[in-house]
This record gives sequence, C-alpha cells and structure tokens, in this order.
Amino acid sequence: MSSKRVFLSESDQPTAWYNLQADLPKPVPPPLHPATNQPLGPEDLAPIFAMELIKQEVSQERWIGIPDEVRRVLSIWRPSPLTRAENLEKALKTPARIYFKDESHSPPGSHKPNTAVAQAYYNKQQGINRLTTETGAGQWGSALCFACKMFEMECKVYMVKCSYEQKPYRRSMMQIWGGSVTPSPSDETEAGRKMLAADPDTPGSLGMAISEAVEAAVSRDDTKYTLGSVLNHVLLHQSIIGLEAEKQFELAEDFPDVVIGCCGGGSNFAGLAFPFIRHRLAGKEIRFVATEPCSCPTMSRGQYRYDFGDTTMLTPLIKMFTLGHSFVPPGIHAGGLRYHGMAPMISLGAELGIIEAAAYHQLECFDAARLFASTEGIIPAPETAHAIRAVVNEAERCRQQGKEECIVFNFSGHGLCDLGAYDRYLAGELEDYAYPQEKIEAAIAELPQVE
Amino acid sequence: MSSKRVFLSESDQPTAWYNLQADLPKPVPPPLHPATNQPLGPEDLAPIFAMELIKQEVSQERWIGIPDEVRRVLSIWRPSPLTRAENLEKALKTPARIYFKDESHSPPGSHKPNTAVAQAYYNKQQGINRLTTETGAGQWGSALCFACKMFEMECKVYMVKCSYEQKPYRRSMMQIWGGSVTPSPSDETEAGRKMLAADPDTPGSLGMAISEAVEAAVSRDDTKYTLGSVLNHVLLHQSIIGLEAEKQFELAEDFPDVVIGCCGGGSNFAGLAFPFIRHRLAGKEIRFVATEPCSCPTMSRGQYRYDFGDTTMLTPLIKMFTLGHSFVPPGIHAGGLRYHGMAPMISLGAELGIIEAAAYHQLECFDAARLFASTEGIIPAPETAHAIRAVVNEAERCRQQGKEECIVFNFSGHGLCDLGAYDRYLAGELEDYAYPQEKIEAAIAELPQVE
Repeated sequence: MSSKRVFLSESDQPTAWYNLQADLPKPVPPPLHPATNQPLGPEDLAPIFAMELIKQEVSQERWIGIPDEVRRVLSIWRPSPLTRAENLEKALKTPARIYFKDESHSPPGSHKPNTAVAQAYYNKQQGINRLTTETGAGQWGSALCFACKMFEMECKVYMVKCSYEQKPYRRSMMQIWGGSVTPSPSDETEAGRKMLAADPDTPGSLGMAISEAVEAAVSRDDTKYTLGSVLNHVLLHQSIIGLEAEKQFELAEDFPDVVIGCCGGGSNFAGLAFPFIRHRLAGKEIRFVATEPCSCPTMSRGQYRYDFGDTTMLTPLIKMFTLGHSFVPPGIHAGGLRYHGMAPMISLGAELGIIEAAAYHQLECFDAARLFASTEGIIPAPETAHAIRAVVNEAERCRQQGKEECIVFNFSGHGLCDLGAYDRYLAGELEDYAYPQEKIEAAIAELPQVE
Repeated sequence: MSSKRVFLSESDQPTAWYNLQADLPKPVPPPLHPATNQPLGPEDLAPIFAMELIKQEVSQERWIGIPDEVRRVLSIWRPSPLTRAENLEKALKTPARIYFKDESHSPPGSHKPNTAVAQAYYNKQQGINRLTTETGAGQWGSALCFACKMFEMECKVYMVKCSYEQKPYRRSMMQIWGGSVTPSPSDETEAGRKMLAADPDTPGSLGMAISEAVEAAVSRDDTKYTLGSVLNHVLLHQSIIGLEAEKQFELAEDFPDVVIGCCGGGSNFAGLAFPFIRHRLAGKEIRFVATEPCSCPTMSRGQYRYDFGDTTMLTPLIKMFTLGHSFVPPGIHAGGLRYHGMAPMISLGAELGIIEAAAYHQLECFDAARLFASTEGIIPAPETAHAIRAVVNEAERCRQQGKEECIVFNFSGHGLCDLGAYDRYLAGELEDYAYPQEKIEAAIAELPQVE
C-alpha cells in the first residue's frame, strides 16, 4: 500500500515565518495616507493594529519567529497533511504528479486561522482584550472568533446584513466560540447610523462593515481591528503552509514545478507560494499560478495602481492590482473571492512576472470540484475549486505534452459550510458571468492619480 | 512544546478488524425470523446483504483481515489522531487525563465511512454495483454515497421526506458524490405507494425508508441493502478506531481507565470500546460508559428483549435493549441518537455488566459541547456532545476524588453540518425532555413473547 499522505510530526512544525519582502528584487510600495498621499508611518496605524503586527507589516527580516503560544494553538490541526492526489491523476490520465496541502482540518475548516491565531496573540500580548472585524459569508469572522476564544479574548464581528440573515449557521459557529455578531450596518456606530439613515433597508456590504469594525476598534482603548487577508503581516503568518510543504516535499523526495492557489485577497495563495518563490528567486524553475473568478478578475483584467482598500474610500491607498474600489461583485457568483483588489506583495510579484494569473468561470470550477470530490473524496470550498480548475487544466496540458511535472495546490478549505452553493450548482441555477471590461475601465478611470 | 496529538503513520494502520464475538463469555443471541421465531440462516439474509458481510455477522474468528483496497480508501483520513484534551483538563481543573479519538476528519465528517467503505467493497467484490439504504438527517447516507463513489458504484438513498425538505445541504453532499436521493415515502416502491395511499402528506420516518430501501434492494439482482449501525459486521468494521487508539496509547505511554462513547445504534461506541473490552475480559480494570439522550434512553430505561429492528415490524427479531419498536422520538430533541433499539453485542455487554449506560438531557450536552469548542477549538456533532457530557462528569468526579484517571472518548463527528441544532440551542429554543416511563412500558408490553 503506497503512502499518500505526507505527515510531519509536531516537532517539525516551523519555528519561524518566512517574509518574502526580504528577497523580492524590488520593495513593496508603501501604503499612502488618503488625505496627504504620503507614506503611512507606524503612528498612523497604531490606533488600529497591534504594534507588533505593524512592525511585521514593514519588516525586511527574512525570518520572524513564531511564538510558542501561537504554535501551541496551531498544533490543534498543524502540521497539515500534504497529500498526493493519485486518484485524480488516474482520472485525468496525466503523467503529472499532483499534490495538495490540506488546510481544511482547522476547526473553522479553512486556512484563515493561521493568521487569526497570530493576530489574536500579538494583540493579547499588548494588553488588548477585544478585537473587531468584518465578515461576509463568515469564514474570516469564524476564524477570528475561534482564535479569540483560544486566548480568552472578546471578538466583535460586523457581518454583512444580508449574509447575517441568509447564513445563520456561520453566525452560530461564531457564537459557539463566544463571538458577538452584529448585522451591518448597525446603529452601534456613527458610520452604521449614517448608512441606515441613508437607506434603512440596505443589505449591507463588506465596505460598510469595515467602516463599522474600524470605528468600533479606534473608539475603545481595549480594542483593535484585524484583517483576514491582503496585508503583508497576514501573508507572513500564512507562510507556515508553504514552509511545511517544503519539508514534506523533502520527505516525499519530490519538488513542485507548478504552484497553484486561489486568490481573493491572496492570503492562501501567498501562504503556499511565497516560500517557493524564494527558490525561484534563487534560480529554480517554478511557475506560480494565482487563480480567480471571471466575475472578479482582479489580476487578469485589473490594473496595477494605487487604490483604496475598501469601497467607501476610508482606508489608506494601496499599490495593487485592482478592478477599482467601486467594483460590485455580481449576485450570481457563488464562489467567494470577491475582493476588488489584491495583496500588494502578490500584485508586485505579478507585476514582476513571477506570478501568473488565470481566471475561470464558476461552472467549470464546480465541475472540477465535483471531480475532486469524486476521486479524492473531499468536498472543496467553492473558493478552492478555482485552484482545482487550474490543476486539472495543467494536468491535462502535461498529458498532451507528455510531461511528468509536479503540481501542488493549496486546498484552502472544505465545502461543508458551503453546500448551499453546491445545491444551486446541482440544481442548474448557476450561470457563468464575466465582469464587463467597460465597467472595469470606468471604475479604474475614477482612481486617484498617485504614483 | 508538548505533543498533544498522537499520530500513527499509515504503515501502522491495523491490518485486521477485531471481533468481540470471539471473546465474549456468552454468545450473542441470534436474530430470529419474524414469521417462525427460528434463528435466521445465511440464506435468509442473502437477498439483502453481500455474502461476505453475512459471514462476518456470525463469525467467531477473533481477527478478520482488512482488504488492502479498503485500507487504501480509509487512508484518505486514517489513522485518525488521538488527541490529549489538555485545555479541557485545565478548564475542569481535573487531575484526570482526557483523550479523544478524532473521527471527524473523514470527508463526510464522522466515523460512519469506516463501515461504509468496507460494505461497498465486499458488495463490489460480489459483483454488486448498486447499494440502497435509508437515511434520516443524512449522516449515514452521505457516508455510503462517499464510499460508493470511491468504488465507482451506484448509491440509492431513501431520505426521510421531512429531512429531505428541511436539510437540502446533506442531500447536496450525497449528490456531489453521485448518490441518487429520493424523499421517502416515494412512489418508486410498493411499500412507498402503500404509505402514500394511507397518508399522502406523511413526513416519512426511518421505518418507512428502511422498507423502501430493502424492497429496492431485493427487487434487483445488481443491488443490495446496507445498514450503518446495530449489526455485528458494522461494529466489526468500526473496531479499527479502538485498535488504532490502542497503538496510540502505547506511544503515549498511557492506558484508559474509562472509555466513553455516545450510542444511537451503537457503532461509534463499539468501535472505540470493543478492542479495550478485550483487555477487561483479560483482567484489566476498565470502565465502559455508553451515553444516550434522556429523550431516547434505550439502555438506561429500556429492557433486554427480542424486538423488531424497525417500526414497521418487517425486520428479523433481534435480542437487544429496546424502548419498543413503536417508540417515536420527540420533535424537540435536536441531538440525534434516536434509535429505539441498541446493537445486540452492546446490549449483551450491558446485560453482562461490562458496559454502563448513562442518559443525559440535551441542554447539558450542548453546554458540554460548547465548553469543548471553547477549550479544544473543535465543534462537536450534537451526538458526540452526549459523550462529552459524560467526560466532563467523570473528570469532575476525578477532581472531587483526587483521582488521576485516564479517560478516553470517541469524538465521533464534527458539528459543521449540524449548526442548525446549535442555532436553536443558542437561541434558547431547546428544552429538556425525558421520555415518559409509562410510554416505554406500554411499548414494551406490546413486544412479542420470544426468548
């Protein structure tokens, strides 16, 4: 019987995160203050984020130690398995070797807790006992509630109102871990009251929820705000995924030719890819494919520009691939990954030609997810399905070209909390949708002229 | 950093199942034909079950080899971790050492696939390409659909109609794995048509769904029926849980004083407990606690009698603890474990004084589940919560008595597909309910007089 899963023992868990900033050939452009267009200093961010996280955000150190307390909580599900997808290989009749790093075994079911745990820890160290954040469907909110509970901290989540009403189960998950979940916009904040005054029946949006979560953080001394993707320190914490995979490939006596991950804000892709980008910068031939939906094709069809991180233009300006902050994801899209921008480090990697982008339609992604569930047994999150689509395409290319390449992708989460999306797919209710080019160009034309 | 999870490598996966029938001091009473009250022979069961499973049902062999093909599929998630619940211990200030065997990592999220995979395999070996079964909430149905897909077999699931309508997501899960799911009663079978004629608006029941699934199996040569609990061969396949745990306790240099599992039909409890019962029969002092809901207190308040396995009196008579086959679980009960009977081998173990039963109210179970999620991070299935309640009580007893006992329980599944039950719990909509003694006595008074 062949060994399909490559395990690391807990003692092989990485003791430091890898910071790609140390090795990129160009520095990541700094975030700019939206009023002055001047680079932000730590003092601008201190009311919002814990100081240690602000330091990590700008650090040029290659290795940053992972505190023991963080590793102890991560050990609930880490090291995560690296699995050879032999059944999928057989079904595709490909000479390629396909591996996936399985991040679905965390209690909330995705990679998100890798950074939630670290962020909760550093805030707690600074004497902060309460964190706020926003959440859409609830994946990031549930990861943060889990992390806060592990450190006995309070967690306040502003959940987009229509999701709050339509997805009570993710809300229950947050509440089981002691989180306080408020539908946004709410009358708890100045920002929320303004939005409700303007439209009492608004379904809410991530942009609105961000505004409330930030206001709720800066208005209390014991409270800070957290973000689940995009920022450098978030990507840093996710690097544990790729660092474990590196060790596992050593044990498997193999090494990837192609590294694939799906991208919303970019954190799960970065987590797997960045430690391998280090090998590419050192001369290895490795391709990196970041996948996204055709309905939100940030890197495929957006531009590399300074833009706001949120739709309400309250955040700093960030240099990134963007569809324009006024981008509104279409209602028909069921697969997540709806953010208008992309993590600055991934954006720079794409600009430098290190990272390729690929956009897929949702039906072909669900088809790939069903193939994966039928062969490897595990039901992928709809987000993860975008990575699997690319894996299937790459494996088919290998078959056509007769190439025995090694493909690895990040299995960022399971789909057991997203079966409603599969229900719509199986019922034939989903349609493909490509975001119109003219709308992208119009949104980008509105961006501030900053270089 | 201490090591909390004890892993086995794939090469340590057991190669044979353990059959408690070889070691029990008394033989398990045979099932009887409902018309003649005579013991059933293999020929009576052959139209329904695969021959190899019928042989296992009556086998007295201590060890039965696990086919490589079965082990290959199980290796998707097995060996499963044995985890020391140190945070729970700390929260309870107990000197007890608490471990859980974590069966939640299988693709459908519970222990059920351990037997579904074996049953699918033996049927496939016999040339059967299609399996039927019934399912209530969908846990067993999804396990069987998963297993059938792994062997490229068809799966036909009769799902209790009210669950089919109220729980579309479990239905989607079965369909993702290629299962065909029909609300029961249906017009596809003679039995279903009769039931619909009697009451076109019936919400359905497990009893009705069993009748349809058995009829659908016996009416086609390429089809057999499967059952997810109760039967000896099902418990045999689950013994892999306890066999792995045995090896893991060796690695941890520890050994259980108390073994705990929740019981519906009994398969997850048996899976963990039976390999350790062997040690008790050889002289070790170990307690075995089987937990159940006060709303379905089969072993706590039922009687050890011959009774039908189903509510419609179509199955053979089985000697078991029973509440009477006319038992109807109350609607208020949210935690599963609703079967009126108990596996014959567990029933015999209880009759012999080897196994203790404990019944709990649902609110105290959800309280224990929330404590577990708050300390160990993982959200338990409501069924599993019944085991955790007992664990908490035993740990508190150890604190009061100052005893450093070793407690292990079976974490039979995660609760991510049961967040609706938590939603009702968190909203204060659940109430405790003890099944009335007079109703139990009335139901038992109706049982056939067979010894």
